Amino acid sequence: MLDTATPASRTAGITYARYCAVRARTLALAAPLSAEDCALQSMPDASPVKWHLAHTTWFFETFVVAPRDRFYEPFDPAFKVLFNSYYNGIGEQHPRAERGLISRPTLDDVLAYRAHVDASMSARCTEADNDSTLAALIELGLNHEEQHQELIVTDVTHLFSRNPAHPASFAGRDAPRTATPVRWIECPAGIANVGHAGDAFAFDNEGPRHRVWLEHFELASRPVTNGEYAAFIADGGYRRPELWLSLGWDAVCARQWSAPLYWQFADERWRAFGPYGLQDIDPHAPVAHLSFFEADAYARWAGARLPTEFEWEVVAGRSTSDDLQSTSRRNGQTDSLLAPRTPIGVRGDIAAGEVWEWTSSSYAPYPGFRTAGGAIGEYNGKFMCNQYVLRGASIATAPGHSRITYRNFFPPDARWQWSGVRLARDIR
Amino acid sequence: MLDTATPASRTAGITYARYCAVRARTLALAAPLSAEDCALQSMPDASPVKWHLAHTTWFFETFVVAPRDRFYEPFDPAFKVLFNSYYNGIGEQHPRAERGLISRPTLDDVLAYRAHVDASMSARCTEADNDSTLAALIELGLNHEEQHQELIVTDVTHLFSRNPAHPASFAGRDAPRTATPVRWIECPAGIANVGHAGDAFAFDNEGPRHRVWLEHFELASRPVTNGEYAAFIADGGYRRPELWLSLGWDAVCARQWSAPLYWQFADERWRAFGPYGLQDIDPHAPVAHLSFFEADAYARWAGARLPTEFEWEVVAGRSTSDDLQSTSRRNGQTDSLLAPRTPIGVRGDIAAGEVWEWTSSSYAPYPGFRTAGGAIGEYNGKFMCNQYVLRGASIATAPGHSRITYRNFFPPDARWQWSGVRLARDIR
Amino acid sequence: MLDTATPASRTAGITYARYCAVRARTLALAAPLSAEDCALQSMPDASPVKWHLAHTTWFFETFVVAPRDRFYEPFDPAFKVLFNSYYNGIGEQHPRAERGLISRPTLDDVLAYRAHVDASMSARCTEADNDSTLAALIELGLNHEEQHQELIVTDVTHLFSRNPAHPASFAGRDAPRTATPVRWIECPAGIANVGHAGDAFAFDNEGPRHRVWLEHFELASRPVTNGEYAAFIADGGYRRPELWLSLGWDAVCARQWSAPLYWQFADERWRAFGPYGLQDIDPHAPVAHLSFFEADAYARWAGARLPTEFEWEVVAGRSTSDDLQSTSRRNGQTDSLLAPRTPIGVRGDIAAGEVWEWTSSSYAPYPGFRTAGGAIGEYNGKFMCNQYVLRGASIATAPGHSRITYRNFFPPDARWQWSGVRLARDIR
Amino acid sequence: MLDTATPASRTAGITYARYCAVRARTLALAAPLSAEDCALQSMPDASPVKWHLAHTTWFFETFVVAPRDRFYEPFDPAFKVLFNSYYNGIGEQHPRAERGLISRPTLDDVLAYRAHVDASMSARCTEADNDSTLAALIELGLNHEEQHQELIVTDVTHLFSRNPAHPASFAGRDAPRTATPVRWIECPAGIANVGHAGDAFAFDNEGPRHRVWLEHFELASRPVTNGEYAAFIADGGYRRPELWLSLGWDAVCARQWSAPLYWQFADERWRAFGPYGLQDIDPHAPVAHLSFFEADAYARWAGARLPTEFEWEVVAGRSTSDDLQSTSRRNGQTDSLLAPRTPIGVRGDIAAGEVWEWTSSSYAPYPGFRTAGGAIGEYNGKFMCNQYVLRGASIATAPGHSRITYRNFFPPDARWQWSGVRLARDIR
Repeated sequence: MLDTATPASRTAGITYARYCAVRARTLALAAPLSAEDCALQSMPDASPVKWHLAHTTWFFETFVVAPRDRFYEPFDPAFKVLFNSYYNGIGEQHPRAERGLISRPTLDDVLAYRAHVDASMSARCTEADNDSTLAALIELGLNHEEQHQELIVTDVTHLFSRNPAHPASFAGRDAPRTATPVRWIECPAGIANVGHAGDAFAFDNEGPRHRVWLEHFELASRPVTNGEYAAFIADGGYRRPELWLSLGWDAVCARQWSAPLYWQFADERWRAFGPYGLQDIDPHAPVAHLSFFEADAYARWAGARLPTEFEWEVVAGRSTSDDLQSTSRRNGQTDSLLAPRTPIGVRGDIAAGEVWEWTSSSYAPYPGFRTAGGAIGEYNGKFMCNQYVLRGASIATAPGHSRITYRNFFPPDARWQWSGVRLARDIR
Repeated sequence: MLDTATPASRTAGITYARYCAVRARTLALAAPLSAEDCALQSMPDASPVKWHLAHTTWFFETFVVAPRDRFYEPFDPAFKVLFNSYYNGIGEQHPRAERGLISRPTLDDVLAYRAHVDASMSARCTEADNDSTLAALIELGLNHEEQHQELIVTDVTHLFSRNPAHPASFAGRDAPRTATPVRWIECPAGIANVGHAGDAFAFDNEGPRHRVWLEHFELASRPVTNGEYAAFIADGGYRRPELWLSLGWDAVCARQWSAPLYWQFADERWRAFGPYGLQDIDPHAPVAHLSFFEADAYARWAGARLPTEFEWEVVAGRSTSDDLQSTSRRNGQTDSLLAPRTPIGVRGDIAAGEVWEWTSSSYAPYPGFRTAGGAIGEYNGKFMCNQYVLRGASIATAPGHSRITYRNFFPPDARWQWSGVRLARDIR
Repeated sequence: MLDTATPASRTAGITYARYCAVRARTLALAAPLSAEDCALQSMPDASPVKWHLAHTTWFFETFVVAPRDRFYEPFDPAFKVLFNSYYNGIGEQHPRAERGLISRPTLDDVLAYRAHVDASMSARCTEADNDSTLAALIELGLNHEEQHQELIVTDVTHLFSRNPAHPASFAGRDAPRTATPVRWIECPAGIANVGHAGDAFAFDNEGPRHRVWLEHFELASRPVTNGEYAAFIADGGYRRPELWLSLGWDAVCARQWSAPLYWQFADERWRAFGPYGLQDIDPHAPVAHLSFFEADAYARWAGARLPTEFEWEVVAGRSTSDDLQSTSRRNGQTDSLLAPRTPIGVRGDIAAGEVWEWTSSSYAPYPGFRTAGGAIGEYNGKFMCNQYVLRGASIATAPGHSRITYRNFFPPDARWQWSGVRLARDIR
Repeated sequence: MLDTATPASRTAGITYARYCAVRARTLALAAPLSAEDCALQSMPDASPVKWHLAHTTWFFETFVVAPRDRFYEPFDPAFKVLFNSYYNGIGEQHPRAERGLISRPTLDDVLAYRAHVDASMSARCTEADNDSTLAALIELGLNHEEQHQELIVTDVTHLFSRNPAHPASFAGRDAPRTATPVRWIECPAGIANVGHAGDAFAFDNEGPRHRVWLEHFELASRPVTNGEYAAFIADGGYRRPELWLSLGWDAVCARQWSAPLYWQFADERWRAFGPYGLQDIDPHAPVAHLSFFEADAYARWAGARLPTEFEWEVVAGRSTSDDLQSTSRRNGQTDSLLAPRTPIGVRGDIAAGEVWEWTSSSYAPYPGFRTAGGAIGEYNGKFMCNQYVLRGASIATAPGHSRITYRNFFPPDARWQWSGVRLARDIR
């Protein structure tokens, strides 16, 4: 789950302006939604928007304000439990599957809660100029909030997908695309350095930087498109067990999967539900809402395989820019794996990007990885089991949030993120 | 499920004023609730308030307005499926367990839907003066709406019980009570006539009126109180399998029941959650929120048994009034089973009464029972399996709604209604 | 569950010869089965044959031998728990769903256990000549064992039905049948006496004898046949929700029912699995392996209804003989509901009869019903919830076991017994 | 699941004597078991012994005899489906969870099936002298059978653990042990070659041999003992969420784990169930029957971590012998990770060894891994998801079966294998 992070960086100096900008973007994402939209939970994996608004605030309250503001009065003592996601070190948690049973506090109450905590954060940001630990904590909180910004988009999309009226959650429309032909980017065998380095912020799971041995391989220059994936479906991809991992085939049969999540076939064509409602699929756009199982089966069908997360990182690292979103916004051609991307805005400029890309790498600690002490150490490490790493960023990712070394991760059957697939091949 | 009814009566002449009064009471019940409160669903058996507001309107639209108003334009064609509860004769239904995933239509949309249908109903009520079939349908729709008024109270109470803050859903407070000592009302063996007779409205399941043979028995003059039930708990009632039906004991073990739903023991005393929040139990008030299994086990512990629905009806029928609520409001003493009741208002005068009383009678058709043709026939008959009859009325029942012959019914493990127990004994 | 009984009778004098005969019949039923056949459990509702062999012995050991034979040494103290079915008054029970995980004791061990207990029973039967309580207990144990004889047949049949090779469990073959046309046997309204009377053995749930009021009705002279039921299927019976109880329709959809249990359609014809393997259905034989839901839906489709258990009993009681099996064996014509039956033997003369017939009566206590004290009182009473009464007997019922007043009972979705349907109609 | 293998080796020349020896060992393992013991299935993950006896035979029949013996008559055509484990390329499979519902074929039938196939295998072994492909297939079949030999022991042990009498499945007794103090074996950073090389048989998942980069680390000279693990329990290991992976803590709570599978605390001491029945734990013996989650939590508690599979392989490879069992039998001291092991026989000399050791490595394909074409390619590759690699061998492993490069694998919650834990530590 993309829920957490730990202060691996030694960033000093967070301006309150930056704090306010991140916080404001969260509100902007929720702005077109009603209180009812914000209260509902469509499945245990997804949370109500109201809960995201409160939990991100709870994070600052719990880890920054409460320990450092001796005049601080909790907005509501019950929130300690109610908006604790999974930090056993903090104490009890309201059951995850029951986040959608909470009509009170109301959305207005939660917005007041945000303002209440923000009021103390102004002074905390100033203190952070001379306190690098505090600065790192605040930076962590902001990155944490950006992660929940993405989840707001994915969770509302899932909620609305369960509504037979298929309402749009955001105004807008996907721009038409023209997919470039795939180029294969070659990488010779050798030792590579991977993982985060430097003083800029990164989550703890991105380090320590370390060496890995890579064999000779090549990577596709762009993700698989809707059109390419439709050919897999048309070729019986969902009916041929030999293409699937055993657990994947079990999922296909038990859940009767026959296309990516949100795809519907009617009137001789595929349409897909998304933030803008139900629309025809664009054959040139990257396919999204695939499980790891589907990504893996597609790759096998295509005579290729998924890349490892390190293969991805090494090729992506050849880019001249570390900012995935910026690269895509420039829409320029580079020699990296990052295909030129049409800026697809979710509500104007809020988000741009493509799809997260499943890798074959099980989510595991890097050599020498240590979790931080205390509850903050529960961010990433404890989830390193039965999940797979995704690299890149998606249209729902906050601008500037992702990095070449960024490790997103989900269980192999998860489909409600913008998750797609890029191919790799051995060279012998 | 207390969801439906069929036009067994030949009532003629429904004033629009009465229509408006019933409709207004529904809105009054929802008035203190926010849009968020109205959107949530706490379990598959309970529905969101918004759904109740819409479904009762759908009923008039589907069975009265659409077939009889040739100028009527549906408010939204999708509502035909979305707010169909279980009428296969009408067509598909939105899945019951997913009623809480619908943020759109919003509460405001649903209120506009109510007004839209009400606008046509004015003329329909006038037409009903000369059309007894139409009058019966409208009367049915109003009684149907009153049933959902009770469900609004029980369902919101259940929803709020899952909120760790235990919010009150209605302003108010239970008045203190003084339970009278139990008198035993005797009834000799013989043939009794039971079931609804006459022209006044009744649900189809209350007839045909017919004969039954009853043995010599006696019935308690009032339901069991909280204080009496607490003695059962204190005597190990929930730990003694010999007191329970086999399925009841399974439920006790699997769900770890140790008290009625909503009861909590802390600080050396029992408290119970209800519409006014979490309050000390009143030992003199009737115990509520029992399953059939608990009612049955209590009776066995007390050396008694549950009455049959006909035993209840025969003794209750000795009352000078057929209106359970009025009787209780007069607070007078009668020779019937109806104990004097303190008017316990849910929001002022909106409701008064006691608890529904489990009987030992499986919910089954009376001899000669026939369902109506068409979808309207799906009201009651198809639910006559694995449910047990409750008689009486509760604090959540709409005033004037219940009758001596009224048959409420729920599965034996249901506890979220105001369901209690009255004792009966054989006399030999 | 047809598991128990209580000593309602005052039978005196059980000959050891009768004891041995009943016990021997149980062994005879198991004789064609291997140790492997006897060890397996195909579902929680069905038990391994080995368990039946042991549990019936446990019954005599627990209720007869251990309390009355001061020299008795338990065969194995662990059996007290292992073969206790559901008697909380005796103590813990091995979990029902795990009866099929017990390879040791072996079948040979269990046969030795039977002999060990039988050795003491010889003297107990002699004592019973002067001890009517003991005689009643032994008689109860024998009737209990006969009930398990039927379950041995139904449970093995179910087990073998799950084997893709469809092996026969017994040698033999159904004799071809010729169904007589249905006659309707009329019964006027009035008070009827129902329930067991007299000194002969009956289970406690068959009494007390009492009065009931019956309306004017008529009952079919024979159960519905396979051919008649096939017409219901062909008419879309399993695809028309209006024919079904709501819970029944849920079962049809969730379990994808489209025919009685054990029926298979292939090569343009229906075949059914049974004790003799997979065979063509005989259109003249009574349809079996119906749930209550299917029986009820068929009756509705046929413009009729299920009889109540008392309607059945009153008409059946007009027979000159109280022995259902004997009547059928004589194959004679009577004015009762009992159709002439071809003796269909399960292994020669072991069993003869037709099908148990679902009634519309929920399984409930008769007025004045009292359970016996102690563990023996757990026989029948605690199961009186959410089950429906079946009357008659089946091809798997032990000869002489059933009675006109006999009440068999199963949950409404049970299908692995020989359960069929007889029609009734109101006369107005 | 340890079910399969693929012919990665080019072994030529299988003597029929070797074939017979492996097949005979399978029968020897089943010899002390009754037909009832062999028929039961205690959980979907475990299979009946009878099924193992048949499936291993099915493997030779399907992949060796049927394609190469033109005179071969199938023993029973139904076995093609009945004993197919998971080979979609062969066709349908009998449902895994229903392997315990098959009383027929009987155990004797299955033994006859074994002899029937063996009769043809004599000539096939001779042909294999001149046909390396055939030789590789037979070798694969023998290794496959050895894997099922281990599963016979683990599955029977699990079955008997569910029997409240706790019967021993094998005669014998664990010899007392003296654990040596742990030594830490250091390994410098560098490139290592891992995976199988050479012509000897190995499963396909052990190759291709390839390079990996390892950081500086050290590995414990022996696995964790029962005594050491008991200290973890005593220190509250099962009550401290901070020690656990998130999924592991979920498992602890949901399944109420408080000790390894088969451990019971009574009379102030720990006992554990095993092939010899219920016995006191030996504090010096390696702890077994741990899930990956427990192994991981123990390591965290101990201030260490699990090794990767490559760390394990590199240190183990320093041993002078490649045969894990032989090393242990010599009981000698080496500089490898292999601790001296007391030969613990399961039924005499049938098996010796310790425990499989969980590694932190997710089960994934090695670079360049390709599955074989056809059904045989379903052996290993399709299971490479959500499982973790175990290295070593156990007391239940067939002699000579395991290798330094051997990769066993199970889901992280599996506990019924002899699975333990060895510690590793980073050195910086």
